[in-house]
Amino acid sequence: MGGVQVAGVGITPFGKHPGSLRDLMMTAGAAALKDAGRDTVDAIYVGTMNPEAFVGEGNVASGVADGLGLAAVPALRVETASSAGAAAVFAGYTAVASGYFQSVLVIGGEKMSHVPSPQVTGILGRVLDPCERAQGATMPALAAIVTRAFMQAFSVTRRDLARVAVKNHSHGSLNPDAQFQRPITLEEVMHSRVIADPLRLFDCAPISDGAAAVVLTADPASVRITGIAQGTDHVALRDRDSLVSFRATREAAARAFRMANRTPSDVQVAEVHDAFTSFELISVEDLGLFPPGRSCRALRSGAMTLGGRLPINPSGGLKARGHPIGATGLAQVVEIVRQLRGQAGDRQVEAAVGLAHSIGGLATGNWVTILERN
Amino acid sequence: MGGVQVAGVGITPFGKHPGSLRDLMMTAGAAALKDAGRDTVDAIYVGTMNPEAFVGEGNVASGVADGLGLAAVPALRVETASSAGAAAVFAGYTAVASGYFQSVLVIGGEKMSHVPSPQVTGILGRVLDPCERAQGATMPALAAIVTRAFMQAFSVTRRDLARVAVKNHSHGSLNPDAQFQRPITLEEVMHSRVIADPLRLFDCAPISDGAAAVVLTADPASVRITGIAQGTDHVALRDRDSLVSFRATREAAARAFRMANRTPSDVQVAEVHDAFTSFELISVEDLGLFPPGRSCRALRSGAMTLGGRLPINPSGGLKARGHPIGATGLAQVVEIVRQLRGQAGDRQVEAAVGLAHSIGGLATGNWVTILERN
Repeated sequence: MGGVQVAGVGITPFGKHPGSLRDLMMTAGAAALKDAGRDTVDAIYVGTMNPEAFVGEGNVASGVADGLGLAAVPALRVETASSAGAAAVFAGYTAVASGYFQSVLVIGGEKMSHVPSPQVTGILGRVLDPCERAQGATMPALAAIVTRAFMQAFSVTRRDLARVAVKNHSHGSLNPDAQFQRPITLEEVMHSRVIADPLRLFDCAPISDGAAAVVLTADPASVRITGIAQGTDHVALRDRDSLVSFRATREAAARAFRMANRTPSDVQVAEVHDAFTSFELISVEDLGLFPPGRSCRALRSGAMTLGGRLPINPSGGLKARGHPIGATGLAQVVEIVRQLRGQAGDRQVEAAVGLAHSIGGLATGNWVTILERN
Repeated sequence: MGGVQVAGVGITPFGKHPGSLRDLMMTAGAAALKDAGRDTVDAIYVGTMNPEAFVGEGNVASGVADGLGLAAVPALRVETASSAGAAAVFAGYTAVASGYFQSVLVIGGEKMSHVPSPQVTGILGRVLDPCERAQGATMPALAAIVTRAFMQAFSVTRRDLARVAVKNHSHGSLNPDAQFQRPITLEEVMHSRVIADPLRLFDCAPISDGAAAVVLTADPASVRITGIAQGTDHVALRDRDSLVSFRATREAAARAFRMANRTPSDVQVAEVHDAFTSFELISVEDLGLFPPGRSCRALRSGAMTLGGRLPINPSGGLKARGHPIGATGLAQVVEIVRQLRGQAGDRQVEAAVGLAHSIGGLATGNWVTILERN
C-alpha cells in the first residue's frame, strides 16, 4: 500500500455554536484521534481562513494543540483562503510523505455565526483582488457574474441552479452533522430573496461554525490519499482566460489524477465546492466528471443525486452541510473517508475511489484530493 | 550532498516602506529567484503573521504569486505567530524533501509601520493566552516578567541587557539592509524610556516593514539545510515549567541538532530571536550555545560580538535589522546563507555551520534551522 493513509476522521455538527473556535477544533481533533485509536501524533496542522478577523485571535495552532493537551506537539497553521482546510491536508501530507513526521493531525475550522452577515461578506471579500474590491466587488457579486456567463454559455436555467440546492438539501437531510437537515423545494429556492442576481439566498452556502479533522499516518489504514494537488489562477477576475470554468480546478484535477494514476471516470463519489449552486455545476465539469456544458443534463437526470451514476455532495455539500470556511476542505475529506469505509449511514454510496474538491478565494487556489479504499 | 538546498536568497531593506505588503514580498521573492538563476519554481510558500489585521488583506499567497507573474504556480501561506517565516521554510522543506516539489520559493513579510504603535501592541497581543490577555497582559508586559526572573536567577544586570542592544546595533551598522545602522551607546539604552520595566525602548525590536525570501531545491547548491525543527510550549505563561528558559527553543534545538548530527559546539554563527534583549541571552543558553546562566559573561567578554568566539546576530538581529514579523524567520536564514557563502561584507564571519532561531508567540512555537556550507 504505502503512501499517506487516513487513520482517523472527526467532525463537529455544523451550524451555530456558542463555543469558541478553539473548542470546535479541539472537539473535531479529539474525535479524529479517538477514531484513529491514538492519544497523540507527531504534529498538528491547522487550516483556518481568518480567525484574526472572525474571532480576533492569532496563534491558533498553538492554542488548539495546547487545548488538546498536546502542547508539546509541533503545530502549524496553513491557509489558502477558503480552501485552507484542504491546504492543511496537503501540508500534512507532504510532511508525512517526506518521512519527517510519521503521523499528523489535520484540523480545519472557522467560527463565523456571531458576526453580522454584512460584516462576514466584507471579511470574505478581502480574498478578492484589491482593485476589483475597491470598485465594490464582493464574493457574491463576482460569483453572480460567473454564474450569468455560465448560464448563457450552456443554456443553464434559473431552475437548474435551484435543482442543485434541492439535491444538496435532500442529501443534507440524511447527514446528522449537516447544518440544514430539512429538504427544500424548487419553489422555495426560486422565491428566496435575491443576493446578487441571479443568485438567491438558497443558492449560497450559509454562514456556519464548525470544525473537521483527519489523522494522516505512514502506517497502513483503511483509506489512503493517492492524489493531492493545488491549481491556481490570477486573483482578478478580469485577468482570467474564462468566466465559465476555473483554471485552478482544471489544473488541480489534472495533477491529482496524474499522481493517482486515475482518470475522472474512476471516481465513484465526490464532494465538490458548492459555495454557490452554479459552482457545483462548473466544478464537476472542470474536474472532468461530466463533459463541458453537460453537468446540467446530468443533474436533471438524477446522475448527481444519491442513487445516481455519480453522487455529488452526498454530505449535503457546503450548501446544506454548512460552510465554516477553514473546516470545509477537511469536512469533504471526512465525508469521502466515511463513504469509502462504508460508514455513511443513510447516504452511503458504494465507492472505492472518491474525490474532494475545495475552492480557495474566487478560485485562485483550488485543491483536489483523491482518496481510495485499501 | 543530497537533502534540501538553498539555491537563492533575497531581502528588502527593513524599515518604513510606503509600498504594500505584496510589493515587499514580490521584491524579496524576485531577488531570491534572480539569485538562484531561476524564472520560476514548483510552488510558493508564504510566511506572514497577521496581514488580516495589519493591512486588512487575505489570500496573500495567491496575491504574491500573481504579482510575481507566477499565477500558475501553487501557493500556500503558513503561520506560527511571530515565527511564521521559519514555519514557511519548514513547510517548503518537507515538500521538497518528500519529492512532491523540486523547488520552492519561500517568502516571509509583514507591513506594520503604518499602524499606530499601541494598535500594533494590541495586534501582537492576540497571540497570547486569552485569559492572561483579558487581565491586561501584553507581549512586552509578559516579556518583562520573564526578563526580571532571568535577571534574578543569573545575576544579570540592567547594563547587561543594554550590552545586547549595543552589540546588535553595532552589528547592524555593518548591514546595509538593517533598519538601524547607527551604533548606540550603553547610556542611550539605559536612558531610553521604559516600555515595561525593566525593558526600555532600546531593549525592544522596532516596528518594521520588510520581506525576505529563499529558494529551496532538491538540486545541489552551495548551502544546504541539515537540521530543521519546531519546539512548542503551553500558550499561558502560568502553565510553563520555567520562566528563565523557553522549552520551545530547547526542544527545537535538540531535534534540529539530532537531525543534523551536530552539537551546539559545531555552530560558528547564529541568528537568534532578540525581540527583547533578554530573549537573546535566554535563547543562546536554551540553544546550548552557552551554558545556563553564562551568556552574560560571554556577552561581556565579547564572545558574542563580531570577531568573538561565536558571533550572535551579525545582521543586527531583530533589534537593529528590524522585525517585520513574518519576514524575520526568513531574514535570519538569508543572513546565515550569506555568511556561509562568504557574502556578508563587513560583517563576515568565517563559518561553515550556522544556525537560525525564531520564536513564535511568547515562545509557543519556536524553530531552529541548521545550515551548512557544501
